[in-house]
Amino acid sequence: MLGSTHGTLTTDSRRARVIACGEHPSPVVHGRPATTDDLDVSGRPLYADVPDLDRFFRPASVAVVGASDTEGRPNTGITRQLLTWAERVGARLHPVHPTRQSVFGIPCSPSVADLPEQVDLAVLLVSDPLPVIEELAETKVKFAVAFASGFAETGAEGAAAQERLAAAVARSGLRLLGPNTNLNAFERFRDDLNGPAIALITQSGHQGRPVFALQELGIRLSHWAPTGNEADLETADFISYFAEQPEVGAIAAYVEGLKDGRSFLLAADRAARRGVPVVAVKVGRTETGARTAASHTGKLTGADAVVDAAMRQYGVIRVDGLDELQDTAALLARARRRPDPDTEGGRPRTADGVVVYSISGGTGAHFADLAAEAGLHLPVLSEDKQTELHQWIPEYLNVANPVDNGGHPVGDWRGRKIIDAILDDPDVGVLICPITGPFPPMSDKLAQDLVDAAEQTDKLVCVVWGSPVGTESAYRETLLGSSRVVTFRTFANCITAVRAHLDHQRFTAAYRSPFDEAPRSPSPSFRKAQALMRPGQQLSEHAAKQLLRAYGIRVPREQLVTSAAAAVRAASLVGYPVVMKASGARIAHKTELGLVKIGLTSASQVRDAYRELTDIARYEGISLDGVLVCQMVERGVEMVVGVTHDPLFGPTVTVGLGGVLVEVLRDSAVRVPPFGEDQARAMLTELHGRALLDGVRGAPPADVDALVEVVLRVQRMALELGGDLAELDINPLMVLPRGQGAVALDALAVCR
Amino acid sequence: MLGSTHGTLTTDSRRARVIACGEHPSPVVHGRPATTDDLDVSGRPLYADVPDLDRFFRPASVAVVGASDTEGRPNTGITRQLLTWAERVGARLHPVHPTRQSVFGIPCSPSVADLPEQVDLAVLLVSDPLPVIEELAETKVKFAVAFASGFAETGAEGAAAQERLAAAVARSGLRLLGPNTNLNAFERFRDDLNGPAIALITQSGHQGRPVFALQELGIRLSHWAPTGNEADLETADFISYFAEQPEVGAIAAYVEGLKDGRSFLLAADRAARRGVPVVAVKVGRTETGARTAASHTGKLTGADAVVDAAMRQYGVIRVDGLDELQDTAALLARARRRPDPDTEGGRPRTADGVVVYSISGGTGAHFADLAAEAGLHLPVLSEDKQTELHQWIPEYLNVANPVDNGGHPVGDWRGRKIIDAILDDPDVGVLICPITGPFPPMSDKLAQDLVDAAEQTDKLVCVVWGSPVGTESAYRETLLGSSRVVTFRTFANCITAVRAHLDHQRFTAAYRSPFDEAPRSPSPSFRKAQALMRPGQQLSEHAAKQLLRAYGIRVPREQLVTSAAAAVRAASLVGYPVVMKASGARIAHKTELGLVKIGLTSASQVRDAYRELTDIARYEGISLDGVLVCQMVERGVEMVVGVTHDPLFGPTVTVGLGGVLVEVLRDSAVRVPPFGEDQARAMLTELHGRALLDGVRGAPPADVDALVEVVLRVQRMALELGGDLAELDINPLMVLPRGQGAVALDALAVCR
Repeated sequence: MLGSTHGTLTTDSRRARVIACGEHPSPVVHGRPATTDDLDVSGRPLYADVPDLDRFFRPASVAVVGASDTEGRPNTGITRQLLTWAERVGARLHPVHPTRQSVFGIPCSPSVADLPEQVDLAVLLVSDPLPVIEELAETKVKFAVAFASGFAETGAEGAAAQERLAAAVARSGLRLLGPNTNLNAFERFRDDLNGPAIALITQSGHQGRPVFALQELGIRLSHWAPTGNEADLETADFISYFAEQPEVGAIAAYVEGLKDGRSFLLAADRAARRGVPVVAVKVGRTETGARTAASHTGKLTGADAVVDAAMRQYGVIRVDGLDELQDTAALLARARRRPDPDTEGGRPRTADGVVVYSISGGTGAHFADLAAEAGLHLPVLSEDKQTELHQWIPEYLNVANPVDNGGHPVGDWRGRKIIDAILDDPDVGVLICPITGPFPPMSDKLAQDLVDAAEQTDKLVCVVWGSPVGTESAYRETLLGSSRVVTFRTFANCITAVRAHLDHQRFTAAYRSPFDEAPRSPSPSFRKAQALMRPGQQLSEHAAKQLLRAYGIRVPREQLVTSAAAAVRAASLVGYPVVMKASGARIAHKTELGLVKIGLTSASQVRDAYRELTDIARYEGISLDGVLVCQMVERGVEMVVGVTHDPLFGPTVTVGLGGVLVEVLRDSAVRVPPFGEDQARAMLTELHGRALLDGVRGAPPADVDALVEVVLRVQRMALELGGDLAELDINPLMVLPRGQGAVALDALAVCR
Repeated sequence: MLGSTHGTLTTDSRRARVIACGEHPSPVVHGRPATTDDLDVSGRPLYADVPDLDRFFRPASVAVVGASDTEGRPNTGITRQLLTWAERVGARLHPVHPTRQSVFGIPCSPSVADLPEQVDLAVLLVSDPLPVIEELAETKVKFAVAFASGFAETGAEGAAAQERLAAAVARSGLRLLGPNTNLNAFERFRDDLNGPAIALITQSGHQGRPVFALQELGIRLSHWAPTGNEADLETADFISYFAEQPEVGAIAAYVEGLKDGRSFLLAADRAARRGVPVVAVKVGRTETGARTAASHTGKLTGADAVVDAAMRQYGVIRVDGLDELQDTAALLARARRRPDPDTEGGRPRTADGVVVYSISGGTGAHFADLAAEAGLHLPVLSEDKQTELHQWIPEYLNVANPVDNGGHPVGDWRGRKIIDAILDDPDVGVLICPITGPFPPMSDKLAQDLVDAAEQTDKLVCVVWGSPVGTESAYRETLLGSSRVVTFRTFANCITAVRAHLDHQRFTAAYRSPFDEAPRSPSPSFRKAQALMRPGQQLSEHAAKQLLRAYGIRVPREQLVTSAAAAVRAASLVGYPVVMKASGARIAHKTELGLVKIGLTSASQVRDAYRELTDIARYEGISLDGVLVCQMVERGVEMVVGVTHDPLFGPTVTVGLGGVLVEVLRDSAVRVPPFGEDQARAMLTELHGRALLDGVRGAPPADVDALVEVVLRVQRMALELGGDLAELDINPLMVLPRGQGAVALDALAVCR
């Protein structure tokens, strides 16, 4: 059980087909054909189909197939636990066994067909769930859970068995959790805890254990979905469902591999629309991680930078360690406020100012230093506020932020006054109090004041308990006893969690779903582009540029010529100085081969260049379709814009700084379509060398609007041409000074 | 007490003077004049003067000046604690009070002059320690501790009082800890803990509290030096001393501000020579942090990048949160092995391979992913080792690394076999076992096996205890009860600490002290250079290049001319094509002003250029000393090499990628002299765009050796010219293809 890793299969083929250009089939969304209205121009769904999992999590009646009460058999322990659970949640439990009369005194049905009532959920403890799924299809059971392992997580044979199981499920009309899952969905949740809860999704149950254990620290949990191999129900389904549940404050997910990129994005979109934060560990930061995951489980792990970008586009907070998952989810749940109809869009937003408050100026300064380094906003408190604080805090101490109380005021009535005064400041959304070491005369009172003050405010109150011991009563009883204060054990996790909350709040306030604006039908450019595509071939530079022109992307004036005389005529039409390049279907590294001549200023230079280019090509054995005579465009910022295909997310759009910067520093940003202008602009802010676009060394600012427009047009190409366009690379795109546009000087396009 | 921040004053003036060029005074090192042999060419000491603090930490007799037993007075509590401490460590305690006969039944001396015996240590509880210091100077007391606050931490007046105190101490011959310190030096250390210990240094006592509390988790501490305002004894003194103590496995320091850069480096050098790791928090990552620290305490905080570099040069491990300080120090102490005469250099070094071992494949893969991302080396175990492990672990589980045991084998005799087999692998230096959630049938046995195996090996065994609860017996009793296993609560801190250990081990093995090789007397270049310096002025480009030439740095062939005819003559001497530049004492932004003409290929172009340059200068009102006619050097990688002054560390040397890269990306590395060729090369590896030096886009690899040589020559200039050279900037240094050298195409030099 503990050693299980999970074998999510990216089933197909099916979804890959869907994004192939021009086919526009009706994909099967959870067993029902979707209408064309639900699809974007790439043929992929625009909205998540949220399964109604109410009866899964709160079934009225449950069948346990393979129930046992024979001591020593594994299924006996499981049956016993299911019995306890059913009793607790008030579900009627029906054992199913071909030969037993009863299990633990409860009458047994020989098969699911013989069950005394329609059940909501069937728990399958049998080693081969396939025949039972087929039986269940006959009855109208909504949900099944399959515990059996030995599927995709074990290799090719298991994967084939899993495909058969998935197919049976798809035919059956029921929804399946598993296989290779376990009892975690049927855990006992503490019902004495208050406030918004964490809903947990893990592929492996074992990795969810520490988050589940948060309940022992007073953090409320409402659900746990151990998705196992995800033959049917996947992480995305649970995200969509949990985002709708009023008691859920935050969704925590531990993801080894995503089953389908699009489903994940649609689910994340639902959560983003509702302002419910999703925090996720996604294994596969490194090649090692990705390889380990893949070789183990046959799961597809998207290139990590794409996963990162996709998560960021939808406000999913990605963390690394399991402890970060716990601490961040705990804070996000506690920080969650119910939508308030009086505020705009029902999404209240507190100020993003963070105040660091401490009984030690040194600790305050230290923590503030790290918080500022991490990008938190620590506003300087107003003169008035400082004057107010100095009523209680000696004049010589710094109360500008961090607020240093010098220690003594926390011991009496002043302690609470100070905290309330800070929380009352309209610029302040978060108060963080690092308590370096327990010093009971002060820290006990301080902890209590923080807990009391947190009860009276919607703002976030965090404590970093600095002692490594963790058995102190101020920590165990006072702080962990609060359902409002969020208590951390490390500086880094506190800062990570607070930043996640503030970023998410900002994200949610500005969020507009790109799916609402995604194109549903091909643009007029599409037909023109289709005519230029050459399946299986790399287009010549000239043809690739025609493709760009079809989508309204500017290319230099240029002509393809096949004689020196034509080159001279072309040059005078294009206008001197000109650039000349050998043109053919498969020429790479033109510059290195000497197949580019720049700055030609006269007819004789053009004639010479024509001869030289064709000579080199002949010498190198390169077949040309001619020579390009192009307008020379010099002054601008060189960028790169391209399309590549991610196995999980489909076509992606990349923008980077050109020339040496992209080659040496790999300074680029990626996005998964569909995305809006906001994300296209955000890509540019991610570039380390973005200052180049603002103009350096006296250069004028570049036409960023034109660059953004090119990125969006390339996205449109990627969506419309889909899988037919295997690769596109505009390199360089010369972005001219502001107001003058951007020109694609060279382009590479590969058709599939 | 809790609110205190500390007011280390960078006393002077004195040290700043020392590095001024040509003066070479005899600086006073801890009250004794140093000999010229102890000084480098910049006049700064080459070796730390290690104070003998044995009698400070283990005094035979102690005087408590201002002792009290009147209930309710703060000094009474302190006196009581000192009594307890004295009894414990076996020191005789003598109260001193002008009027009392006895304190807590011990006879009182009216003044230090009347003490019944020579004491080793005087603890000063009086509010003004200055007169007592003067009295103590008469007796031969070695050490004093001053608790009083109200010095540099409170502002200008306090700073002046502190300077008077420091002067009195310097005259007295005793060594002072404080002022503004407290009882932390006299804490009770647990004496039942084994293994190498942590020695702790904190400016504020409060920040040391969590490290001190590590003893409750079984981590041994041997010393605590709460340095307070460092009027005399400073962090560096304690580092030097602790590095010599056999029981010390690691030194942990919490530093708000360094008193003196050089002292710190010399102390770090001592620790590096002995292979004793120093792990430090240094507040001031951000401007906010630096400003808060500075405004509070009047301390000088060196620019953070310089602090970072200085620490790295001497292997000091810099961490951020206090929890990282605890966890990293704990691991370093436990990982410390006594020098073994049988291994090379007495510095045994284990393999740097890390194996991740777990009872859950998912957790193992997840942890391994993050460890690899952080740069740890996870070797794939040999086929033989894997076969060996598969004796006990089912065949279908991955044992290549991470090693996934599937759970069950840990429950019986196989568990220990597996651990021993991993630790026995010669490629493995560290075993990390993340225990995701407590599952007593497995995790209790696993914890015990790890503890037992760790007793039998010199290799490092780490556990990440994944449960946030922390009250489980496997954690509290088994794991924390071990003096060998290092147990963490977070993924990140485990990875940080293991990496710190492996980096430090590698660093120590390769360490050669730069002080041993630092120049002690000026080079022949120095006299030539001195003649070129113009105090208070910025040199002309031509003069700055002469300065470089004096130090053997190549500059282009060039001539300074004052007529068009002379320019033409110069051009034919220099060789066409040439570059011409206006030359004068204070011309910045030559290119933007049009004062540079490049690629001139004929006499007529040179004549025209001369006229144009002088016309522009006249028009712009710029006074010229002539026009430079320079050899044109085109093909190479543009770099920047420069010297700036850091208030704490003196002159520093910076190297960066030139052109757009340095301007837009600030891609540069800095070092504090003295440093050797190894560090000059290491600087280049820190550059993000370092691949440019290897040659990109078909460019040949650059002459890195020549670049390194320039960096070392610039360092020599910085050391010899010291404060007289306020700033030097070679921009660009054109690094030619390998074997062809490097040429300084432009230079800016400012004299002080």
